[in-house]
Parts: sequence; structure tokens; C-alpha cells
Amino acid sequence: MKKLLLLSNSSIPSEPYFNWGKPFVKDFLGEKKVKVLFIPYAGVSISFDEYTKTVSDVFSTIGHEIVGIHEFKNPQQAIENCDALAIGGGNTFRLFQQLHELNLIDSINQRINSGMPYMGWSAGSNTVCPFLFTTNDMPIVQPKSFIGLGQLPFQLNVHYTNASIAGHGGETRDMRLAEFQLLHPNINLIGLRECSLIEVRGDKYFLKGRGNTMKLFRNDKNHKEIEEGEFNPEDWG
Amino acid sequence: MKKLLLLSNSSIPSEPYFNWGKPFVKDFLGEKKVKVLFIPYAGVSISFDEYTKTVSDVFSTIGHEIVGIHEFKNPQQAIENCDALAIGGGNTFRLFQQLHELNLIDSINQRINSGMPYMGWSAGSNTVCPFLFTTNDMPIVQPKSFIGLGQLPFQLNVHYTNASIAGHGGETRDMRLAEFQLLHPNINLIGLRECSLIEVRGDKYFLKGRGNTMKLFRNDKNHKEIEEGEFNPEDWG
Repeated sequence: MKKLLLLSNSSIPSEPYFNWGKPFVKDFLGEKKVKVLFIPYAGVSISFDEYTKTVSDVFSTIGHEIVGIHEFKNPQQAIENCDALAIGGGNTFRLFQQLHELNLIDSINQRINSGMPYMGWSAGSNTVCPFLFTTNDMPIVQPKSFIGLGQLPFQLNVHYTNASIAGHGGETRDMRLAEFQLLHPNINLIGLRECSLIEVRGDKYFLKGRGNTMKLFRNDKNHKEIEEGEFNPEDWG
Repeated sequence: MKKLLLLSNSSIPSEPYFNWGKPFVKDFLGEKKVKVLFIPYAGVSISFDEYTKTVSDVFSTIGHEIVGIHEFKNPQQAIENCDALAIGGGNTFRLFQQLHELNLIDSINQRINSGMPYMGWSAGSNTVCPFLFTTNDMPIVQPKSFIGLGQLPFQLNVHYTNASIAGHGGETRDMRLAEFQLLHPNINLIGLRECSLIEVRGDKYFLKGRGNTMKLFRNDKNHKEIEEGEFNPEDWG
């Protein structure tokens, strides 16, 4: 059974790192100690060691272990053998560049398809989408491909907000996403607000978090807010 | 002599379209009526016809003519024959996708190198940079390449601001640009604020606009504000 936990974000200002998401990760992984393989490739301004340590410090407080993929000689093999996988946030382009270069996409998909629990936040949640198209990140490197794991049948825009900076001429988030929709009218799109996550268990989908709705973007601009709880992407048409 | 006019933005809230840039375009093109070839490829939520009409309405008030490249059977030939070229803002990924697919990069470079005046704003200013890496746009399509015209010896971040949305967990602009710098320490980077432009005349560079400084990002984070007037990128090391 497919098991995904996809967080919009790890941090919010004024709370400790990963604070809001911790109880959900705890529920997701269960009581028994799990050794989670961590992919820190999205990190740019933090070393893989530091990043892994930071995440490890969080997971250890809920009784689980983190080990960084960069500590293995053969990352593909590390994925084949891990009990659970987590991909952290950072720069989605940098992450995709490395996932494609190291040929990890197929390996990860095989493991997810055979029931290995997968966790992602921010860039790590973008990874399971069909494409990279709806990341908010700056394209600081060129990945070989914009193709993602395709484990979700829709695109996520993480850190979703339509707030904008007063007096600034740049596009709002909704304007950017409307442009995505114009060029890809057949791909469903969800705006996942901060402190929200999507959990997938087999063919069941749940929105969880701190009470925010998520936004289903419609081609006819008749967007729909979806409440927390179970939802079914097949209802979206 | 190389002639570039690179605007950070076309619009700001509360002023008519292209209002702030118009006097600079007027100076740049001169008194004699110029027929300017316009590339509207960055436009996504506006048709090429509408976009061209909007720009044409502005340029006609300063005595110049606009003709859209999409009206020509052979866009490469249109570039070879035009008196001046303007590339408008919109989505930089969409723009690069089409410039690379239609093989227009070399043609535009040849014309710029032989003295044809080039104007760009927003995505059209990103185009002359070495790479697409520092655009703020959403990667709604995958271009064949992130390589730009390379007419500027540095990267621009247009619409530059470090303002951020209160309470939001996403990266600030400076955090994004710092990540670019970490991966590309040998490429100089300029934050070009709204209502600012860079004019290039041969080997001379000028910052113009409404009085804002531009920000030179330094690898050691000792960033430098550069005042309006002439500047020399060779001084940056």
C-alpha cells in the first residue's frame, strides 16, 4: 500500500524547526523505531551533514532514526534497502538535478509502489508531483528533466499563499499558477498552505494540519476550497 | 556599437503601463521613427496580438512603431531584418523555451553584436544574461536550455526587493540569490530594483531610473549598493 506524507513546509517563523509537522510524522511512522533514509540534496546553504543532523535531532525526539544518503557509497542501493525515505526542503531545481543525475527516480518509485513510507516537505513534496512546474524556487541550476516521481495525480504548489508585497510590480502567486493552468489545462493543481499536509494511504487521500483548507484551482477560475479530512482527486474531473 | 536598454519592470501599481520607462525608451531610440520588432513570447495570459497592441500603444506615443514577430512566417528572418528589437516581460521559462526552439538566440546575438538596438523588460532583460538562473518566474514549462544571450557579463535579478510576506515560511529573495551565488561563485550578480534600468553603449554601462541604487551581491556577503550613473563591471573583480 502506497504511503506518502507530504508537508507544505517544515518551518514557520516563531516556532522551532519542524514543530508543527512532528506529531503527524509520529503518527505516520508509528510506535516502532524506524530507520529513515534522508535525502538532503535540496540543501544549498547548509551542508548535507548539518542538514541531516538537524533533521535527525527532530526525528530522535519522536523515537526514530535518520541516516543521510550521502553517507552511502551507492545511493541507489541505499534506497533499495531503506525502511522509509524522507526528502527535505530547499531548492527543488538542485534536488531534481541530483535525483536525475544519480538515476534515483525509478528506484524511489519502485520502493514507494511496494509500500515503503515516503515523507517529503517543501521541495520533497514537489518531488512526488508529475512535474517540477509549480515550485516556488529559483532555477539556480538546470536539471536534466522537470519530470517528478508522478506519485500524486496532481500538482502541488507548496507554501501556498496569495499574499503579495505592497507596491511591488511582480506577479502574485495566483497569477503564476493561472499561467501554469493555461499551458497545462489537464493537470489538476492544489495550493497547499503552510502547516498543511497531504497523506496518501493506498488510494485514500487526506488533508491534515492546523485547520487550513487547501485550494483546488479550476480552469474556469471557479476555485474550490477543500476542508481537512478525506478527499478524492477523482471527484475533481 | 552594442546598444542595450534593460528595464527591471514595465509596470508598477498605480501608474499606467510602461509609464516610468517611456522617457528612457524615447531617449534610447532617438528622434527618428524606428520600426521595432517585438517578441511577445513571454506572454502567457495575454495573446500575442493583444500584447503587441498594448506595447504598440505605448511606443506610438513616443513616435515609434511596433510590429509583432508572430506576424512573420519566418521569425529568424524577421530578426535579421529588423531595425530594433524589444522583448517583453512575462514568463522567462516560456520565453526561453520558444527562443531556443525557434533557434533565435544566435540570430539575436549577431544583430546585437552588429549594433542593432535591443530593449528588454523583466523576462526580456533576463534574456541578455548569461543564464536563466536568476529569474523570479515559475518554471511552468521546461526550456531546452537555461542559456541566455550572454550579452551582459553578469546576472540580473529583476524586480529586485528583499521585502517578504509577514509570517510566511518561504525564502526571502536574498536567501534565494545567496543560494545562486554559492553554486556559481564566479558569476557576478546584480539586484535591479523596480523603476531601474541598465543601459549598455559599447563598453559603457549606466544605471538609470527613478533614483534607486542597484545591489551588487558579493560572495563574502559584503554587498555593495551602486548609485545611478556610469559603472564598470570590470571593477567588480
